[in-house]
Amino acid sequence: MASLGAWPPEGTAREPPAIHLLKPLFGSGGLPVDGATCASWRFGVETNNVRGWRTVPRSCEGYVGHYMLGDRYRRDSAVVATEAAAYAEGLQLPGDGMDVWIFDIDETALSNLPYYAHHGFGVEPYNATSFNEWVDKGIAPALPESLKLYHKLLPLGIKIVFLTGRSEERRKVTVTNLKRAGYRTWEKLLLKGEGVKGTAMAFKTGEREKLEEQGYRIVGNLGDQWSDILGKPEGARTFKLPDPMYYIS
Amino acid sequence: MASLGAWPPEGTAREPPAIHLLKPLFGSGGLPVDGATCASWRFGVETNNVRGWRTVPRSCEGYVGHYMLGDRYRRDSAVVATEAAAYAEGLQLPGDGMDVWIFDIDETALSNLPYYAHHGFGVEPYNATSFNEWVDKGIAPALPESLKLYHKLLPLGIKIVFLTGRSEERRKVTVTNLKRAGYRTWEKLLLKGEGVKGTAMAFKTGEREKLEEQGYRIVGNLGDQWSDILGKPEGARTFKLPDPMYYIS
Repeated sequence: MASLGAWPPEGTAREPPAIHLLKPLFGSGGLPVDGATCASWRFGVETNNVRGWRTVPRSCEGYVGHYMLGDRYRRDSAVVATEAAAYAEGLQLPGDGMDVWIFDIDETALSNLPYYAHHGFGVEPYNATSFNEWVDKGIAPALPESLKLYHKLLPLGIKIVFLTGRSEERRKVTVTNLKRAGYRTWEKLLLKGEGVKGTAMAFKTGEREKLEEQGYRIVGNLGDQWSDILGKPEGARTFKLPDPMYYIS
Repeated sequence: MASLGAWPPEGTAREPPAIHLLKPLFGSGGLPVDGATCASWRFGVETNNVRGWRTVPRSCEGYVGHYMLGDRYRRDSAVVATEAAAYAEGLQLPGDGMDVWIFDIDETALSNLPYYAHHGFGVEPYNATSFNEWVDKGIAPALPESLKLYHKLLPLGIKIVFLTGRSEERRKVTVTNLKRAGYRTWEKLLLKGEGVKGTAMAFKTGEREKLEEQGYRIVGNLGDQWSDILGKPEGARTFKLPDPMYYIS
């Protein structure tokens, strides 16, 4: 393996920060009082050390807000997408149309940052009613780095499978939203059927099993939660996007 | 699950930064030119997105050096150790002496930061000769957070298994070093036998299999590399310490 050399690799210039055109932080607009500590909490979360948390620590609202609205979230996402694209481009694929890449939806294909920016960036407990009202608008923007990766995977003959914990009743608005955000084609859109119990991880693992039974090869799997990418079969290689706003088991 | 509430939890006051009493950064002593980008590279590394890298990007030497010698490395490690201790203290154990916790050694039980501080914090390619000369001195300090966790696990009746890619020929100096650093008792010290081929992950997975065959229950597993904590049986719960200096597959 060669040294990484220059960082970032060529061709990773950033797009205009479209999802950042949001109103400024509400509440704590200044620098976080205890930035280093919130940064370490984020380290713990992103490395799957800190699990089962329900809300962002209140003292970290400012820190997480600045992270999400600033350069860091975009840059961290770009590292993941760049690595994923390099991996995909290095694959030798048979070209029989059975190679798929799994994309989670929320905070992966689509960004709910416009919603969370008005709800304390994860400091407020999850509110299904208000979150679903947002989802039903169908206006979530793409996470730009995920969309860029999507556009690199399609020409390689890799098909896209969206696999989401969103419920089946939101299929229509999800289709509308994905297309509006720039995802124009996919092999499957797998949502959680009514009455499906258990964790997101169990649901998603089960759906990946079914894909393999159908003859698909899962060459890649991209999500913002560890529950998206753990559990066999997880895919030949998994990629973890940042998400310090919420935890799903 | 309750909210995390205050962060850090009570009782996580930091010890004096003993392993920081090193000479200042050599070479780049100032702030990194491109800190945010090196920070995102580190995110990619710590989340197992960026794999198979041989050296820290040269432009990130200053960033990684400041990270390692400053508060962040200690604080990030403390989050992991605190979470691990809380998990361990919540376990219901049968008390039959068969519950074990696996500790990796380098950058987990012991810190080689005094060595890496003189070798570019991972910017220089790995040099087995000079690294082994350092190891043979047997003076690596404990990673303080790991030692603290060790001291919390023992009274719970959890036995310690050290599992390391260090070779069997370094058993004696490793024993000396562990004791000198404050690890006074353990159930097993598993080193890599002569002629063992393959990746660290394969070796460690195989050793964990043997432990389970011997009737041990691996209740926890702590390492700085993903190859320490991936591969079934990985242990009931795994914990990933920070290490932006090198990658082992």
